[in-house]
Amino acid sequence: MEVKLLHNSPLLLSIIGARNCYNSFEKSDSINKNEFVEYGEKDLNLINNLIKNGHHSVLEHVYYTFKIDGISRALLQELVRHRIASYSVKSTRYTLTELKKDENIDVDKYCVTEYLPGNIKSDLLNNLLIIKKLLNEGWANDKVKYLLPEAYKTTVIMSINARSLRNLFKLRTDKKALKEFQDLARNIFLILPHEHLILFHDVIIF
Amino acid sequence: MEVKLLHNSPLLLSIIGARNCYNSFEKSDSINKNEFVEYGEKDLNLINNLIKNGHHSVLEHVYYTFKIDGISRALLQELVRHRIASYSVKSTRYTLTELKKDENIDVDKYCVTEYLPGNIKSDLLNNLLIIKKLLNEGWANDKVKYLLPEAYKTTVIMSINARSLRNLFKLRTDKKALKEFQDLARNIFLILPHEHLILFHDVIIF
Amino acid sequence: MEVKLLHNSPLLLSIIGARNCYNSFEKSDSINKNEFVEYGEKDLNLINNLIKNGHHSVLEHVYYTFKIDGISRALLQELVRHRIASYSVKSTRYTLTELKKDENIDVDKYCVTEYLPGNIKSDLLNNLLIIKKLLNEGWANDKVKYLLPEAYKTTVIMSINARSLRNLFKLRTDKKALKEFQDLARNIFLILPHEHLILFHDVIIF
Amino acid sequence: MEVKLLHNSPLLLSIIGARNCYNSFEKSDSINKNEFVEYGEKDLNLINNLIKNGHHSVLEHVYYTFKIDGISRALLQELVRHRIASYSVKSTRYTLTELKKDENIDVDKYCVTEYLPGNIKSDLLNNLLIIKKLLNEGWANDKVKYLLPEAYKTTVIMSINARSLRNLFKLRTDKKALKEFQDLARNIFLILPHEHLILFHDVIIF
Repeated sequence: MEVKLLHNSPLLLSIIGARNCYNSFEKSDSINKNEFVEYGEKDLNLINNLIKNGHHSVLEHVYYTFKIDGISRALLQELVRHRIASYSVKSTRYTLTELKKDENIDVDKYCVTEYLPGNIKSDLLNNLLIIKKLLNEGWANDKVKYLLPEAYKTTVIMSINARSLRNLFKLRTDKKALKEFQDLARNIFLILPHEHLILFHDVIIF
Repeated sequence: MEVKLLHNSPLLLSIIGARNCYNSFEKSDSINKNEFVEYGEKDLNLINNLIKNGHHSVLEHVYYTFKIDGISRALLQELVRHRIASYSVKSTRYTLTELKKDENIDVDKYCVTEYLPGNIKSDLLNNLLIIKKLLNEGWANDKVKYLLPEAYKTTVIMSINARSLRNLFKLRTDKKALKEFQDLARNIFLILPHEHLILFHDVIIF
Repeated sequence: MEVKLLHNSPLLLSIIGARNCYNSFEKSDSINKNEFVEYGEKDLNLINNLIKNGHHSVLEHVYYTFKIDGISRALLQELVRHRIASYSVKSTRYTLTELKKDENIDVDKYCVTEYLPGNIKSDLLNNLLIIKKLLNEGWANDKVKYLLPEAYKTTVIMSINARSLRNLFKLRTDKKALKEFQDLARNIFLILPHEHLILFHDVIIF
Repeated sequence: MEVKLLHNSPLLLSIIGARNCYNSFEKSDSINKNEFVEYGEKDLNLINNLIKNGHHSVLEHVYYTFKIDGISRALLQELVRHRIASYSVKSTRYTLTELKKDENIDVDKYCVTEYLPGNIKSDLLNNLLIIKKLLNEGWANDKVKYLLPEAYKTTVIMSINARSLRNLFKLRTDKKALKEFQDLARNIFLILPHEHLILFHDVIIF
């Protein structure tokens, strides 16, 4: 899988949110209190304390948009259960053309294989060849998609705020989580802007 | 598929909600305005008008819990994208035992087949036999599940309020929707309490 | 304030949700596993364990609708910040007629007074008399409402699921919460069906 | 009131979301299809069509964070009813110090007055003086806040995605909406980045 951070809003927004609740802008590290465009240690301490004390709504001002490429539809099933987030998913109703035309199917191009039992690539290949044949016979995507294995790869654009992402990390960095989801969680964590890690350090289990 | 209505809250709740906004209980059909336990034509007209005028929040007080049995995981992918609803899904991480022990696999017991291309039952059976074999070799569910076809059947407990259900009906009774989702939408519609249909008549396309 | 429970869905729904995830209906206490209409100790242990282990989504199938009467608009500001819930609020844009026509204004009829500084009833009365006078001069509710004190009473129909209600209890039974909100939380708790208390005992602080 | 746009995510994110659903990056105007960092007329047509056809989820990737200063708590009551958004509100539980110490109270500093009946400034001033006196007598903010008029000014940090903002515009640019909310909606609209207006043009009524 490959995870890219397409965009994030600045950490500063959560600090502005917090300062606004208590009207405590004058206690911030920013020199210009009216144009609050920088933050410092005192501001980070405030955020740390709010996280500790369960006042997490200010974290919702910080958003991330990721491009998640090459995860299985098995993982997709679990991912989209995180409902406080936005998803645009490569649709199997519209995007089977590539497979249809592929003269030399490479299983790893279409399926996640690293989490599967050993030696099943030939079974997956058979599966893909059947799907390709049906597509070429003129069956509609909407019918053929039922044969796709859950290992089939997809691409997701996901937007999620820091509060909801904390929940995702808490549940999915746990050893009991699906291994592929643990890996996704780690990959997301690793590409967060360094200064944002303060928002998540207490919920990362690995 | 089989859809059962496990519970619904009374239509009256949306009327109480509406009457409360305008403090117009005395205009209701109920004889006892303090113990508002019945409604009549005037109350239904109020609800009708609110629906027409886009004041839909009062519909959120009416909830339904369905048991949806025997839909495909292909449909599940689309269903859970309706985020304003609650889902408890039969987990393939924990529930492959039956298949593992089944000495005489009937494809139709494990897979939705009616929406698929013709004559693919033997392919699906091969697929299921491979999965069964891997399970019996001791591979973990978490690894084997990647081979499940999207036709694999699941069972979902879904709770959804009337406002969110209107949105589901609007999108999924459309001819462009996945056929299996059209059928699910119709099956849900058909088991709603008769007096609740007033909440949905304008968004049903079929 | 007065809190009434207008409706609740059965606790059984959360158990059905939980049993469905693991397909463990046969482990339930119900005699008829197909028509799952009763539950017992083993089922309650399952729910208890899920609550302990943070698997809370099954609690979303259990809904409550309350009529909350006679809370202040100060409390309303805080209440509706619980966004995973549905509200129908008596609107001050439409419902000032009673005050307009009242020949003998009783402060306690229109305002919550028990949480206020002592001896301010005459100030509140003056305030209400000014509002009444402006209404009688023909000023629109939309203009006059700006003068309402936050002590002004309102009535809310609230629907909330058990998971979101747990969050409300956790935050608002705390001593640091607004005293009126603590009282509302306690009043809600006290009218829950007795068998539902198992869903909340660990988040009640008082 | 004063509305500032603190941050917005790029319009491009919604286009990437849309292109991903149909895997149609190669149909975009971007020269480099892999590093999709620009968009053109064809991409905007796609977004326009999705909006027309009710496929609005891709708009959720575009977020805005506003600082909204000097709105009344009357408007705040209505604003936070838009639940698909995040709010950090200047708390009257913590921020009455300024009023307490103010030797020369200017009503317009503390209260929104332009939407009120004429000639009520002296009434508001009396109200504020009573509050100031109670604060100086040592009564807690949590008790005194009940006397605040709904005209009292507050400051809100609001984050909202483009889909939810469309709903806000649709409801609140209507002539039937509270006049102050119409003005807020207009002020938000006026500071949106020019290229984002394509996402909203069809829901603006004024």
